[in-house]
Amino acid sequence: MQLGMIGLGRMGANMAQRLARGGHMVVGFDPSAEARARAGDEGLATVDSLAALVATLDAPRALWMMVPAGAIVDATIDALRPLLSAGDVLVDGGNSFYRDSQRRAAALADAGIAYLDVGTSGGVWGLAEGYSLMIGGDAAASGRLSPLFRTLAPAPERGWGHVGPSGAGHFTKMIHNGIEYGMMQAYAEGFAILERKHDLVPDLAQVAEIWRYGSVVRSWLLDLTADALVQNPRLDGIAPYVPDSGEGRWTVAEAIDLDVAAPVITQSLIERLRSRDDDAFSDKLLSAMRNAFGGHAIKRD
Amino acid sequence: MQLGMIGLGRMGANMAQRLARGGHMVVGFDPSAEARARAGDEGLATVDSLAALVATLDAPRALWMMVPAGAIVDATIDALRPLLSAGDVLVDGGNSFYRDSQRRAAALADAGIAYLDVGTSGGVWGLAEGYSLMIGGDAAASGRLSPLFRTLAPAPERGWGHVGPSGAGHFTKMIHNGIEYGMMQAYAEGFAILERKHDLVPDLAQVAEIWRYGSVVRSWLLDLTADALVQNPRLDGIAPYVPDSGEGRWTVAEAIDLDVAAPVITQSLIERLRSRDDDAFSDKLLSAMRNAFGGHAIKRD
Repeated sequence: MQLGMIGLGRMGANMAQRLARGGHMVVGFDPSAEARARAGDEGLATVDSLAALVATLDAPRALWMMVPAGAIVDATIDALRPLLSAGDVLVDGGNSFYRDSQRRAAALADAGIAYLDVGTSGGVWGLAEGYSLMIGGDAAASGRLSPLFRTLAPAPERGWGHVGPSGAGHFTKMIHNGIEYGMMQAYAEGFAILERKHDLVPDLAQVAEIWRYGSVVRSWLLDLTADALVQNPRLDGIAPYVPDSGEGRWTVAEAIDLDVAAPVITQSLIERLRSRDDDAFSDKLLSAMRNAFGGHAIKRD
Repeated sequence: MQLGMIGLGRMGANMAQRLARGGHMVVGFDPSAEARARAGDEGLATVDSLAALVATLDAPRALWMMVPAGAIVDATIDALRPLLSAGDVLVDGGNSFYRDSQRRAAALADAGIAYLDVGTSGGVWGLAEGYSLMIGGDAAASGRLSPLFRTLAPAPERGWGHVGPSGAGHFTKMIHNGIEYGMMQAYAEGFAILERKHDLVPDLAQVAEIWRYGSVVRSWLLDLTADALVQNPRLDGIAPYVPDSGEGRWTVAEAIDLDVAAPVITQSLIERLRSRDDDAFSDKLLSAMRNAFGGHAIKRD
């Protein structure tokens, strides 16, 4: 079917390409001429404005935003709204906060425009392996776009589904990312203990490879970890600094809001915060306290 | 090749069966007549004493213990020692503490008996899918037993390896189990938040199924979790009580001993302890403190 892809960054361009390979008629738009040129080099038809994009598509239209969460989503919706007609479907495939998606869906419903929040997992590997898609919003609109979901997913009947009303897709993706934080931290800690014991177990890449087959901890994240350790066994050149892009924070805040204890997901977020603080005020204060009550030596800067 | 399997519980019987199917000549022993009969029903040759087991095998022998960690391992070794000869290889495939394995290997080395500590993962699924094997101890002895490892593993060249000297296999398996605790806890917390939000996302089994394909959190544990949620969506009849069998405790103690921060693995263990304490003194004391300083109401038993 026809689709307009808005946002031709890493995720958007790859998804457009997977859809085009699957026989869909995809037209792309990105405000950056460079992003458009890059997508064009890969064979994707592009246009240089939202108006041109909407004009290219037959009504009722399907448009998919793959843009960073936040103000840019609202700005894109504001720019699109006068161009769209009742019956069109607009997808947010990014990592928006689910309450924002609920607000946006309600605002567009007045104009008869269906708004789907589609949590999308798979990263840079999605082009080849397919994406996991968690769809929230109007069930009929979701059904109408099912040919796209069937192509984007790893297999036509696997890895995608309509999980609930507006917000359900992004809520589910938020929880997915919270779980991801915890899994990553568990592997990271385990390998860190092994690494400290390298006199006994010298080859971490070998251990990761062994665990990939038959072990209880086998997973796709372990596959990637094993590859990273094979490529760079000492992790040379990588700073111990871990960014976060918001979903972990939201998961922790929602857990608290719902009175659900989620200590490991919470701790995984906190470890990322700590990784970015190489001059922790708390550690200095602890050292000062030990000195104050016990005369213990302070390590000076 | 020939192998004597000592311990015909769930793990030992399954491993013996996988080896027999792979063309090896396996004889089993278990002190329990019932366990021997069960293994016999599945086609395994059994004997009713360690002496008979050793007598059945041609020297140099290979014997594999699949018995619970602790005193029973030492008792089995004590009983075997006078029966074995220099050149024999004895494997401990259970979840022994790695320092115990180092001690046992050193004691048997005097008699020329090689002792391999082989961390074995795969649980009840190993019979069909193969086991992940982490081997510690003498490299030549490990090499001699490689036909067995090639059959037990998911594929001849995958999922097994000699990871280091005595203790390395069980140390690696201990870390594997620590990681397993953290991964399990991360999934459990994520699904618990989703469950509390069932008005928005009603079908947890569907979410788990979607995540199995293309998502970043896909894993074998998730495959099992999805199946558990399909079979029993509300987890009816399952008490919120989580045992542990030691490897998590050892991982945490080793991490502290090595000055490595492993907060998520540690917290995952603590959550299991907490799951077993439905009358927590700490919670009562917190309630009493709130009452003392703020007059907050105490919920009575």
